[in-house]
Amino acid sequence: MSHPQSILDGNRLALSRLITQAENDTPESRAALVELFPHTGKAHLIGVTGSPGTGKSSLVNQLALHYRKAENKRVAVIAVDPSSPFTGGAVLGDRVRMRDLAGDPGVFIRSMATRGSLGGLAQSTSNVAQIFDAAGFEVIIIETVGAGQSEVDIARLAHTTLVVEAPGLGDDIQAIKAGILEIADILVINKADHTGVEMTEKALKSMLELAHPVQRVFQHHGVSMSVSTHETQTPVWIPPIQRTVATVGEGITELADSIARHVAHLTQSGDWSLRDRTRLEVELDLLIHEELMQRFHSKVPQKQYDEVIEKVFQRELSPAEAVGFLMNGRFE
Amino acid sequence: MSHPQSILDGNRLALSRLITQAENDTPESRAALVELFPHTGKAHLIGVTGSPGTGKSSLVNQLALHYRKAENKRVAVIAVDPSSPFTGGAVLGDRVRMRDLAGDPGVFIRSMATRGSLGGLAQSTSNVAQIFDAAGFEVIIIETVGAGQSEVDIARLAHTTLVVEAPGLGDDIQAIKAGILEIADILVINKADHTGVEMTEKALKSMLELAHPVQRVFQHHGVSMSVSTHETQTPVWIPPIQRTVATVGEGITELADSIARHVAHLTQSGDWSLRDRTRLEVELDLLIHEELMQRFHSKVPQKQYDEVIEKVFQRELSPAEAVGFLMNGRFE
Repeated sequence: MSHPQSILDGNRLALSRLITQAENDTPESRAALVELFPHTGKAHLIGVTGSPGTGKSSLVNQLALHYRKAENKRVAVIAVDPSSPFTGGAVLGDRVRMRDLAGDPGVFIRSMATRGSLGGLAQSTSNVAQIFDAAGFEVIIIETVGAGQSEVDIARLAHTTLVVEAPGLGDDIQAIKAGILEIADILVINKADHTGVEMTEKALKSMLELAHPVQRVFQHHGVSMSVSTHETQTPVWIPPIQRTVATVGEGITELADSIARHVAHLTQSGDWSLRDRTRLEVELDLLIHEELMQRFHSKVPQKQYDEVIEKVFQRELSPAEAVGFLMNGRFE
Repeated sequence: MSHPQSILDGNRLALSRLITQAENDTPESRAALVELFPHTGKAHLIGVTGSPGTGKSSLVNQLALHYRKAENKRVAVIAVDPSSPFTGGAVLGDRVRMRDLAGDPGVFIRSMATRGSLGGLAQSTSNVAQIFDAAGFEVIIIETVGAGQSEVDIARLAHTTLVVEAPGLGDDIQAIKAGILEIADILVINKADHTGVEMTEKALKSMLELAHPVQRVFQHHGVSMSVSTHETQTPVWIPPIQRTVATVGEGITELADSIARHVAHLTQSGDWSLRDRTRLEVELDLLIHEELMQRFHSKVPQKQYDEVIEKVFQRELSPAEAVGFLMNGRFE
């Protein structure tokens, strides 16, 4: 049993054990999360997403190194792989990734694989982030692979979301990633030493202009600027585009500066609190849903449920009638 | 008011009105769906998904034409666009798409845009499919744009899922689409007159081999074959790869043959019923969730809910404690 106090005291083994329990959603981890929760809300959550092949993992490694060495912050990395077995291996194992950071107690790297539903993964990622937060990690980097709804859901956890691209991706891929672009606070073109970097930047810029029309006027990225909208002055964040070559650490300091500017913007605009609150509301809704479904299924015997499904399948009951029957014990 | 009987009688205007009501989830549409449900379960639902730029819409048009003209079937098309405003226009408007099919009462094409949540879109797509099914459309093609969880959810509606590719997409895009490949019953390489078609087919084949290891032994696509697993003979479906040039109608007959073989496989293996049942179970779960949440929110005043959220935000209550409080009116 990992006593919550030992997490607060910085016991690494207790931390590791509790995370495993949280991944499996044990009663112990639930109890611990309740006790740890008052100690959360201090960490900066950074989401990093992008397609396979963009060099995300190296970038995350370099960012972790930067925060550790240049800013002396405690850094946790949660590498989430919600994709199919196909892309397995895209997130490297804990040991491989720790090469540059091995033995440093101020760094903790954890890979998480899909268990059950994607909703479940978002929930357990949130729980693990809370544990790191309570344990005093000041920067928590959440890395996801792929592009899709799951990434958007997981990105909702973060205060700052980085979307990583690489040169050499065609127009088609850009179109797919339109949805992902909308969640980007900062765009990173990694592998910026590869040919085609100009074209990638140009493509991203024109997509950004579609997403953030105000940019057409100001053409300043990464600056929290006051824009007059109607009567009030609203600070607007235009996602900057940062070039990096993660393999050699190029552009990492500039990226960290960009992230710091975003934090300043979040604080000034009140968006920091807003994102925090939204995240907690989403989490609360998930928990309510889970609890309601559990109560429902404990009240309705499996046999009755199966019989009703069979009647629906036979077109004797419509889905709506079936729900009315299951909820009220009679037809509405 | 669209009386359900007029739908069964084939009244086109009534059909169109009811679909609009179903999109908006009105009480009238809910009542109509209950009445129509006994008349559903006859249509073949075909899902078509793939990235923008693969020519999906033309392909769907050609398939609809084929079923209409070569097989004299009544065909409905539901074009779902769950993506961001960025990709708006990828699904053409109803009128534009009907060019080849205009005035034919055996064809009905309907575009649906995102309203509210993606879960809501999957639900209303399911409802619209049920309406077409009850109205006697024998083939219902559900077309989705993009690649992600939403497509997977919507594909679950279908008996047969087509994943459309086009030559000229690099390795990166293939990796992203790994999750989508897993839902494919048939792979279509459209624009097969473009250069790079061999490479695309090769890439798809190697991905299929990862997904369906049995294929390495048999190397026969699109054939429902009996494979000895332990003691029993289980029919296994290996997704075939079909080349098409939708703009000129090339390969459409062969694709339709492939789809027909899949239907035969589904029927023989019992998977037709299984997919039907799974779809209805998912729908039932969504309805139960919705009903439970509605009851919850009608019991808990908004003011109390907001107060609890505020306490969570202030770290005075953990999310789990908050749920206990909201559900029981007290702390557990």
